[in-house]
Amino acid sequence: MGAESYTGRINRKLNKKLRIVEIAAGREKADLVLKNATYVNVFSNELCHGDIAVAEGLIVGMGEYSGETEYDMSGKLVLPGFIDAHIHLESAMVSPGEFARAVLPHGTTTVVTDPHEIANVMGADGVEYMLQATEDLPVDVRFMLPSCVPATPMDESGAALDYRTIDSFYDHPRVQGLAEMMNYPGVIGADPMVIEKIVAAQAHHKKIDGHAPGLVGNDLNAYIAAGVYSDHECSDPADAIAKLERGQFIMIREGTAARNLRALLPLLTEKYADRCMFCCDDKHPSDLLEKGHIDYNVREAIRLGVDPILAVKVACHHAARYFLLNNRGAIAPGYLADFVVIDSFQDFNILQVFKKGVEMFDGTAVRDFPAPEIDPYLARKARDTFHVSRLTAQDFAERRPRGIIGMVPGEIVTEDQGYSDHIDPEWDILKIAVVERHRNTRHIGIGYLQGYGLKRGAVATSVSHDSHNIIVVGANEADMAAAANRVAENRGGIVVMEDGWIRGELALPVAGLMSDGTLESVNRDLESARAAAFALGVSRDIDPFMTLSFMSLPVIPTLRLTTRGVIDVAKQQYV
Amino acid sequence: MGAESYTGRINRKLNKKLRIVEIAAGREKADLVLKNATYVNVFSNELCHGDIAVAEGLIVGMGEYSGETEYDMSGKLVLPGFIDAHIHLESAMVSPGEFARAVLPHGTTTVVTDPHEIANVMGADGVEYMLQATEDLPVDVRFMLPSCVPATPMDESGAALDYRTIDSFYDHPRVQGLAEMMNYPGVIGADPMVIEKIVAAQAHHKKIDGHAPGLVGNDLNAYIAAGVYSDHECSDPADAIAKLERGQFIMIREGTAARNLRALLPLLTEKYADRCMFCCDDKHPSDLLEKGHIDYNVREAIRLGVDPILAVKVACHHAARYFLLNNRGAIAPGYLADFVVIDSFQDFNILQVFKKGVEMFDGTAVRDFPAPEIDPYLARKARDTFHVSRLTAQDFAERRPRGIIGMVPGEIVTEDQGYSDHIDPEWDILKIAVVERHRNTRHIGIGYLQGYGLKRGAVATSVSHDSHNIIVVGANEADMAAAANRVAENRGGIVVMEDGWIRGELALPVAGLMSDGTLESVNRDLESARAAAFALGVSRDIDPFMTLSFMSLPVIPTLRLTTRGVIDVAKQQYV
Repeated sequence: MGAESYTGRINRKLNKKLRIVEIAAGREKADLVLKNATYVNVFSNELCHGDIAVAEGLIVGMGEYSGETEYDMSGKLVLPGFIDAHIHLESAMVSPGEFARAVLPHGTTTVVTDPHEIANVMGADGVEYMLQATEDLPVDVRFMLPSCVPATPMDESGAALDYRTIDSFYDHPRVQGLAEMMNYPGVIGADPMVIEKIVAAQAHHKKIDGHAPGLVGNDLNAYIAAGVYSDHECSDPADAIAKLERGQFIMIREGTAARNLRALLPLLTEKYADRCMFCCDDKHPSDLLEKGHIDYNVREAIRLGVDPILAVKVACHHAARYFLLNNRGAIAPGYLADFVVIDSFQDFNILQVFKKGVEMFDGTAVRDFPAPEIDPYLARKARDTFHVSRLTAQDFAERRPRGIIGMVPGEIVTEDQGYSDHIDPEWDILKIAVVERHRNTRHIGIGYLQGYGLKRGAVATSVSHDSHNIIVVGANEADMAAAANRVAENRGGIVVMEDGWIRGELALPVAGLMSDGTLESVNRDLESARAAAFALGVSRDIDPFMTLSFMSLPVIPTLRLTTRGVIDVAKQQYV
Repeated sequence: MGAESYTGRINRKLNKKLRIVEIAAGREKADLVLKNATYVNVFSNELCHGDIAVAEGLIVGMGEYSGETEYDMSGKLVLPGFIDAHIHLESAMVSPGEFARAVLPHGTTTVVTDPHEIANVMGADGVEYMLQATEDLPVDVRFMLPSCVPATPMDESGAALDYRTIDSFYDHPRVQGLAEMMNYPGVIGADPMVIEKIVAAQAHHKKIDGHAPGLVGNDLNAYIAAGVYSDHECSDPADAIAKLERGQFIMIREGTAARNLRALLPLLTEKYADRCMFCCDDKHPSDLLEKGHIDYNVREAIRLGVDPILAVKVACHHAARYFLLNNRGAIAPGYLADFVVIDSFQDFNILQVFKKGVEMFDGTAVRDFPAPEIDPYLARKARDTFHVSRLTAQDFAERRPRGIIGMVPGEIVTEDQGYSDHIDPEWDILKIAVVERHRNTRHIGIGYLQGYGLKRGAVATSVSHDSHNIIVVGANEADMAAAANRVAENRGGIVVMEDGWIRGELALPVAGLMSDGTLESVNRDLESARAAAFALGVSRDIDPFMTLSFMSLPVIPTLRLTTRGVIDVAKQQYV
């Protein structure tokens, strides 16, 4: 559609609305009717019965209706479509379209994404890329603008975003606010560069998400008074309740790296659940394929004894209220016709999924939909984010003593394990390097890693939070150089190298973060690379790539590695 | 403040926010601290204890704080300020500033007004007048734009508002949406002129209030699917629950003309209360003085057994959520420092009221505040709304038979009592006339009235829903002319006339609806006019002016009188 005057817009909407009223009043046939439905009424917290009529993608009424298309819902349950309140889509390692294809069978019809990863690579262009890559998808993708790029000035990322750089995005109809304000010390410390981002989001009447694990007392007051409305970092009920009592909304996170659902079950009662919602934060391919998405949270919550209707509300209604997505999260007139049809609360098998009144999943397959068009300039730019000269073993041949980062199985925190000046696979001392890859600065930070277990070869990845430089760990410098070079050659991804042979790899050519392939093919490549890494000796207690990807995030204790060397996070000093 | 750039605005807000953070974190003294407060926490539904710190008009934290000004709250209860979700301010018959002075001692800190009455007189200028007359008052006055001016095309009001006329008001920061859509037959019947008003409000992302007593089934679906989000016309729980279940919010009305609180008490339980709020719709001076405002509803609800914390939430939090007034209705960091201090839930005496951190009521008096400035052009225009030639007895000397409107004590519905061709006070047959007064059309509708009881003289009022022409009822035509003339001379108001003598009067020179005086003086004049009317024989079962003011509203059965004659409302025909 070209330019449209205000009058033209009102007239267009008027004609749709007149049709909706005619159909709701029963004077015309609906586009779609779910006949004899038993559905969750989020307003009365009970199951209701009747036909659900749909027109123009909206629910127009419940009662007795007939439609052009009708489905008999006898014996089934109809729920509103699920909402993921906080995700970084890039973590699925596939395009947003492919992500949509993967989550539709799980009942997800809306996600709120923070394009934090791609923004660290491409800056504002990364945000724009994701907006274009999600336009008109059958899963509605809403955005929170990255608030902390780079995560810390200690790091070298591909971009830095101040409030002015992101400001124009607030006018985009799918932008809901400012994403997780991870720099809570900056907020509490009244750093103007941090606070002005919040002030600008408020000036646009937008939401501001939080990220402040364990914050309490007057510091928590300061963080909330500054204008942070939610938190998804709670891992125990006391932390969550302190935040709820001060007015924050709580996103109960159950993702690949962090899983808080079970610990936060006490929130899922009448007293607190109204201001709770579900999110996954990060969700890796195997997890999406094997466990599912928000449906997994609902199923688990019900299995663990949560009232099913309440669990469903947490999965849809509450996130819609928080984000002011006023037309979704309920089955009522005027709401989006986003439905999840299941067999029963106990079995919770998803039989059908509708998005805006269109059946997108029929129990077997996802209906085809066109891929969003991306501006050619942006598409090219997203595939050209590696600016790094060819590396040799010499580039990693450091002989001075460097700090040893000690991995802790099942955690992303690390320990300080002293110093080393050489690789010693016998004692599980490997070399680790972070290669700056955005601007070809030739900055290479070098350190040692203990607990990874590699005996031969090297492993490299361009998924390395949050700056997404190339992390490479190796038992020898030649394989480290070869692995890092191969990652750059692939324009991103994961490589497992042994004696110059590629033993496994996954190419992630979009910003070094996302594949062009299907979720299944990405998962296949990932699994085979994982097997290769284990074959080279990587400890089976550790996810060879995900754990590695956190080794350069200099905001999590104790030691981390950046392009400038090993950092003591607590002291914010190089060791 | 003059024009301000976006950067200037962000910087100004940033500096306030930095100060808020410093104070919240405890590094600087607060502007105000309510020490040792026991306060209602609307998020955990319990009483909490601590100091409440305020800076820049906002709550910045609860815990331990010290402030420039401190009040000891030991033994008292602190509640969020109350919100009236739907009122026509004009019905208080005083200026908005005077209204604010009257309701502050009752704990009201926000009202949402529909300037429907003045809009029927002055059109868009009436809306603008009220916006200016409420600027920076210590009660925050928010607006819903009149949706039904005139109430019906059968009537002659001072203005007609289509969607384009009101559209620019949506940009005003205190306009929350489109007011009660009384023309529900127009919505259900898909009248484009009606639906386009809803569509335009939605295009501005605004709320749309409803007014649809007893609507059910698919018609109710159609009304809600069209985009109407609330209702304040429910007089029984079944009606309210049908609407709640379909997603509408319910405003529980307790005003002067209509009182639904007691009937709707079953809604005030955990199951439904979340989407319920309080409103008064119309509140007359004596009622405000004697009973109070939203505090009356809370007090009554508690007395009738409603959980006190739930009653308080209905009085503040839920309306704030509905209207997206996100910074009020709770005691939590970032929320407006609007407080009501009471002694206890049982006694519910209001001891202090704070608005944006300023003590506005100290238990005895209201702190003085400046009257808003009104554009001189508008101020003049508001006092020049009577355009009607001098009337004589001859103007009312109709001899043809006319319909008799039968009054029903305690109701505003009327009965069809046949015809008459002359006044007969013996048989309680009075003459009633509606004199068009906006455009000097000399249209005078004449009929007869039974049940009013007047024996001598005449009573006239320019408060006559919704077109606010002059209604005059009399035992003789000479007094009818004199009373109507006197109303016009006063530029509006109420007059009780006997043999050419003014027995009682209240001047309402602002649009013929509002006085320049205090609420107390208006009430005094009104009470003395009422006494005069009773002295002339008006039945004591009837409010002499309020009941009269509904006799020309041609949307309520059975018979009504307009400037064109007596109407059968059901048939929408002149009798």
